[in-house]
Amino acid sequence: MDKILVVGSIALDSVKTPEGESVEALGGSAVYFSLSARNFVPVSLVGVVGEDFPAEHRKLLTDHGVDLSGLKTASGKTFRWVGRFGKDLDKAKTLDTQLNVFETFKPELGTAHRNAEFVFLANIDPDLQWEVLAQMHKPRVVACDTMNFWIGLKRPALKELFSRVDVLFVNEEEAQKLARTTNNVRAALALSAWGPRVVLLKKGEHGTLLCTGGKVYPFPAFPVKTVKDPTGAGDTFAGGFMGSLASSGGDLKDVGALKRAVATGSVMASFTVSDFSTRRLETLAKAEVEERFAEYRELLSLPASAAVPA
Amino acid sequence: MDKILVVGSIALDSVKTPEGESVEALGGSAVYFSLSARNFVPVSLVGVVGEDFPAEHRKLLTDHGVDLSGLKTASGKTFRWVGRFGKDLDKAKTLDTQLNVFETFKPELGTAHRNAEFVFLANIDPDLQWEVLAQMHKPRVVACDTMNFWIGLKRPALKELFSRVDVLFVNEEEAQKLARTTNNVRAALALSAWGPRVVLLKKGEHGTLLCTGGKVYPFPAFPVKTVKDPTGAGDTFAGGFMGSLASSGGDLKDVGALKRAVATGSVMASFTVSDFSTRRLETLAKAEVEERFAEYRELLSLPASAAVPA
Repeated sequence: MDKILVVGSIALDSVKTPEGESVEALGGSAVYFSLSARNFVPVSLVGVVGEDFPAEHRKLLTDHGVDLSGLKTASGKTFRWVGRFGKDLDKAKTLDTQLNVFETFKPELGTAHRNAEFVFLANIDPDLQWEVLAQMHKPRVVACDTMNFWIGLKRPALKELFSRVDVLFVNEEEAQKLARTTNNVRAALALSAWGPRVVLLKKGEHGTLLCTGGKVYPFPAFPVKTVKDPTGAGDTFAGGFMGSLASSGGDLKDVGALKRAVATGSVMASFTVSDFSTRRLETLAKAEVEERFAEYRELLSLPASAAVPA
Repeated sequence: MDKILVVGSIALDSVKTPEGESVEALGGSAVYFSLSARNFVPVSLVGVVGEDFPAEHRKLLTDHGVDLSGLKTASGKTFRWVGRFGKDLDKAKTLDTQLNVFETFKPELGTAHRNAEFVFLANIDPDLQWEVLAQMHKPRVVACDTMNFWIGLKRPALKELFSRVDVLFVNEEEAQKLARTTNNVRAALALSAWGPRVVLLKKGEHGTLLCTGGKVYPFPAFPVKTVKDPTGAGDTFAGGFMGSLASSGGDLKDVGALKRAVATGSVMASFTVSDFSTRRLETLAKAEVEERFAEYRELLSLPASAAVPA
C-alpha cells in the first residue's frame, strides 16, 4: 500500500445553496481530497493555513489519519471562499475569494513527502504544480487538477504540465475550453493526446468519462435524491479515485483497476454532496463506502444476454 | 415474440446543425421508433401522411419490415418540421412547424392493431393518445412519450394518461417541469409515483435514468465522437427499449430485462445521431447492433473486487 501526497488549498468556505448555508466551514481542494482518499491509503497533506485556522479542524484531519506534517502555518489569515449555488446546483457562483496566506504559498516538501509514490496536484497555480513536481523523487503516479481561471491565464504552462502527468482530472467546462470542442468525448480524447495516460472528464451529476488507451468509458454518477452542497465533489472524486488506485497497486495499464477507481470516486462524491462542507465525510464509515460501492455496481450491472433475438 | 404498434408523427424534416444540413428528409417520432424497434420485433405504424409523401420513403419503411397498413394518406401536405441545433448540439430550436395533414389526424386502429400486445404512443396530443388507448384490446405494455408543448397546455390530461401507462419516456427538461424539481433523481421518482411502473428520464449525451420499483438506475449514453444530427435520438431510444423488451417477453418486473432494454436503446440512439435523418438506421445491420451492444456492456463492466482494502 502506498502513500499519497496532496498539495492544494485548505480553506474556510461560506456557501449558500437552496438547501441552506454554511459559514466559514472547513473546505479546500486538499481537504476534500484527503478526507476521501484516507479511507483507502495513508494521505499526507501539503499546504498552508493562517494563524486563525481553528484547532478543531486540524484535530479533525489528524483524527482521520491525515498526516499534517507538511501543513504550514503562516502569519496572516486562512484562505477564504464565498460562493453560492443556484436552483439547479450545477455551478458555483464565486462571490468572494480572499487568498490571504495562500497568495504567497510556496510548497516545500520534506524528505518523506518527496518520496511519495502517488501525488495529487490540486487546482493551484500551474507554476506551483511544477515546483512540487520538481521536488518529487520519482513518483509512480502524478495526477493533477486545474481550473478555468488558469486555462485563460496560463494555457501553455498547463499544456506543458499535462504532458508530464499520468492522470488528469478536468471538468466538462474546462475540458471543452482546453480542447476547443463542445463534444465531451472528443475533448477527453484530445486531452489524452496531450500526454496523460488517464483523463477523467467530470460532468457532476451526469457522471464521468474515463479516457485511456484511446478509448472512452462513460460512468454515471451515483444517483442522489437530495444534494445539499456540491462544493468539493470533484476533489472528493479525485480522492476516491487516487485512493482506490493506490490501494490496488497503481497499475495505470489495468483498465479494471481504473474503472474500480472511477466507481469509488463516484461513490465518495455522492456522500460529500449530501451535506454541507466536509460533514458527511467526517462521519463516514468504511462499511458505508463498501455498501454504496456494491450498490453502484449492482445498479450498473447488465444481464449477459445478447441484444438482438436470433 | 410480440408485435409493437406505434402511433405518432411521420414528417419531412429540414435540419441544420454545425455538421451540415438535411432538407425535407424522412423524420417523425413514429418513423425513428419503427426503424429502431424493427431490429428486434415486427412493428406496425399508425399515422398520417399527405399526398406529397415520397414513394421512396414508403418503400424504405416497408423494405425494413415496417407494417404500413395503418398509414393513412390524407389529402393535403405531409407534416413538416424545420429546426436548428447550436454548437453544443444540445437542444433543437424549432424554426417552423407545419402540421398540415397531422392537424386533423384521428388515429383509427384496425382489428390487428387493436390486438397488439405492445404499444408506443409517441408525443402526439394527449387526447389522441387517449383515443388510441381506448381502441386497444388489452395491451400488455403501454408506453408513451410527451413533449414540453403539452405539459404547459394539458397538464391534467397528461397526469391522467401517465396513471394509465406502464412505461413513460420523458426528457430531462420535461421531467423537471412535470415534477416541479430541478433534481433529476427526484423527478424520476415523482413521475413514477404518478403511476407508470417504469420511467425513463432521457438526458441526451448524458444518458438515461431508469426508475422502477422505487429505485433509480443510471446509465450513460454510448460515447459518440461525431454527433451530426440529434434529431430522433429519443424516439430511436424508445424503439430500441421497446423492441428489446418485447423480444424478451415484456416482463416489467424483470429489472435485468429493463436494463438490457435501456442499453439497447442507448446503442440504437448512438447510431441515429451519427448521421442526418434516418440515414444510419437505414443501413444498420443486426451484427452492428450486437457488436455495439457488447461494447457498451464491456465499457460499463466493473471488476468484482471490493472498494476498501481490508
